[in-house]
Amino acid sequence: MNGEILAIGDELTSGRIINSTSYFAASHLFAAGHKVTAMATVGDDPKRIGGALVKAIGRADFVVVTGGLGSTTDDITSEAVSEALGLPQTLYPELLELIKDCEAFAKMPAMEKMAWLPSGAEVLKPGAKMAGFMLVYAKKPIFFLPGVPQQMRELMLDRVIPRLATWQENSFSLVRQKVFKVFGLEEAIINDRLASLEEEGDRIRIGYYPMGAEVHVSLTVRGETAKEADGLFGEKAEKIVSALADVIYGEDDETMASVTGGLLGQKGYSLACAESCTGGLMSHMVTGVAGSSAYFRGGVVAYANGVKEDVLGVAEQTLLEHGAVSEETARQMAQGVRAITGADLGVSITGIAGPGGGTEKKPVGTVCFALASAEMVQGCTFKFGGNRAMVQGRAATMGLDLLRRYLLILPH
Amino acid sequence: MNGEILAIGDELTSGRIINSTSYFAASHLFAAGHKVTAMATVGDDPKRIGGALVKAIGRADFVVVTGGLGSTTDDITSEAVSEALGLPQTLYPELLELIKDCEAFAKMPAMEKMAWLPSGAEVLKPGAKMAGFMLVYAKKPIFFLPGVPQQMRELMLDRVIPRLATWQENSFSLVRQKVFKVFGLEEAIINDRLASLEEEGDRIRIGYYPMGAEVHVSLTVRGETAKEADGLFGEKAEKIVSALADVIYGEDDETMASVTGGLLGQKGYSLACAESCTGGLMSHMVTGVAGSSAYFRGGVVAYANGVKEDVLGVAEQTLLEHGAVSEETARQMAQGVRAITGADLGVSITGIAGPGGGTEKKPVGTVCFALASAEMVQGCTFKFGGNRAMVQGRAATMGLDLLRRYLLILPH
Repeated sequence: MNGEILAIGDELTSGRIINSTSYFAASHLFAAGHKVTAMATVGDDPKRIGGALVKAIGRADFVVVTGGLGSTTDDITSEAVSEALGLPQTLYPELLELIKDCEAFAKMPAMEKMAWLPSGAEVLKPGAKMAGFMLVYAKKPIFFLPGVPQQMRELMLDRVIPRLATWQENSFSLVRQKVFKVFGLEEAIINDRLASLEEEGDRIRIGYYPMGAEVHVSLTVRGETAKEADGLFGEKAEKIVSALADVIYGEDDETMASVTGGLLGQKGYSLACAESCTGGLMSHMVTGVAGSSAYFRGGVVAYANGVKEDVLGVAEQTLLEHGAVSEETARQMAQGVRAITGADLGVSITGIAGPGGGTEKKPVGTVCFALASAEMVQGCTFKFGGNRAMVQGRAATMGLDLLRRYLLILPH
Repeated sequence: MNGEILAIGDELTSGRIINSTSYFAASHLFAAGHKVTAMATVGDDPKRIGGALVKAIGRADFVVVTGGLGSTTDDITSEAVSEALGLPQTLYPELLELIKDCEAFAKMPAMEKMAWLPSGAEVLKPGAKMAGFMLVYAKKPIFFLPGVPQQMRELMLDRVIPRLATWQENSFSLVRQKVFKVFGLEEAIINDRLASLEEEGDRIRIGYYPMGAEVHVSLTVRGETAKEADGLFGEKAEKIVSALADVIYGEDDETMASVTGGLLGQKGYSLACAESCTGGLMSHMVTGVAGSSAYFRGGVVAYANGVKEDVLGVAEQTLLEHGAVSEETARQMAQGVRAITGADLGVSITGIAGPGGGTEKKPVGTVCFALASAEMVQGCTFKFGGNRAMVQGRAATMGLDLLRRYLLILPH
């Protein structure tokens, strides 16, 4: 189906905030096989909202609208829609219940307006305060989602995409989809490796999504029958995995941390992290996975060289001779964090995140890693591009990826 | 002046890339006192480009168009504009010279099309390959910029903003703007406290932006003269600061970590962090600030209780009697990380991020904090809502905020 996305908010038209919600919406819709024909952004202005909405409904098969559903004075989407489409504001008692239960409501009775929706609206997520809603207008589905990225993404995945799938009466197109997670290869090269798999027309769509330090590759396949869709999907998926075998680490909801953590749990090894320039990010990524306490002992952020010495046992001589950013120091950090935490495996990161601190021999972005086990310790060096936050993010992901590759070849 | 922004590119409508160019354009235009009345995005489709452009020209005082100026087959902006506005494609010899001088041209003769612009176009940056161009159509300035963020930003700042300034015969509206950073108060209550400051019309606009664990409040004021704008701004800003004095931690580009780090540097105290449920996030936030090595020693992520005992010196008896998530344990963690790193101040966090691990006495979201100095150690407990990532984010920010408030009352 052809759809349009309408984002509402002065924070967008004044350039305060980058429009991540439209981006999320577009990528999810694309991955589900739809075509986004236009994206618009308007400020918190009832006339402009109404005008843009009516135009979009006229042009497209469906519309996704984000923003302006909250309780503050600049949240006016519900009223603007009522005005523009001639659907009177209606009280939804179940929403009012939820809002009244909320702690903030006692001090903030204005929140009550969140329980008033255009007549005929269907609450998208009953039970949630920021539930979103859907209207059918001119026989077309119009979705109204909160502008807060996390809430908006959940509703897109849990409600909007499935609802659009059932909206198409002829399920003549059956869609199979998977996202492959890739780390360590530039998007242009990934694109080059998969170029021969792409096709004209709508049967196959391959999407490339740079996500921080990684690239996510989505495969969407349409068939006339389930059998055709399955067959085509199996064939293409196999070719993608084969072309990217050296750099694919997971699929769909898997993350670098969840895959690596899964391997630690499965093979029965515990982990500790020793970090300098990444400041705790790698440890934090590990603990972002529920259940990580089963394999994660903890870590040390040895930001000052004195802490590398006193807590991790890095030799003063090593720091003097090779410097804090060296494979020698990284190896001792990895061994040290193993020793003090009692972990089976130690992974360390020490580098120069920038913007300052670089030299000709060790420019900004130079990062050394090491992995230590009971039997061995090994180090390596990489050079990352980007600003401070990008170097930190890429290095933390690389640390986990080195551990992942090591675990893959380890016996139980 | 009222302007519209039109971004062109399939990579945007397929959700491949987040639209950072429209964001940059909007923020620069806003800062220069203009109002962005609509933002649109269309794919690489001549008809849609032409249609959107003509509509925008009809509605606004000026238009900024980005994307589609390159040399590949999907770069069609110049031709689409010629078609839509009836301005024949014209060869610009000076552009052709530049392109022919280029190394890539030998392998890529299709680059020549970049020297053909709609008749009447003025090259924005003579001497540059990606020069952008400007048309005057219906007596309105229409700017066409490359989609590459860096190039587009330069042209916005160097060419578009100054050109628009000279375009306005009456420079009647002057804008003052500031963003106040708030942590620890719900958006609805902030809105309530500021409700009396809001006004009808365009003179004053207050925006509320939830950003992770925080709320950012923006104040935008317009005046007919610089004096009026300054006066109104000063008056409103003072009232906002007064209404939110207990929860504003910074302004504009400041972050919780940069403000807290600034206080550490200014007052001459060094810091170490002891974390459990936040997994290193608070340390990572501290190190996200360039120059943090001046005051940050490092930290310990004591995820397993054994590490709390062995590395931080938490007493086994304390863990047995009070549990890992207790003010008693938090206090010993803060004292312990001070001791082993030699830092002046230790801040600790231990809690239950969820989804598992909660009990009736200590439900998910219960987090204990402590701050230790040479003279004292003090703990406290908070309860955070949200999922695992939100509890971690809010707790890490709270840890820094507790330190910030303590530093504010400390002498040098």
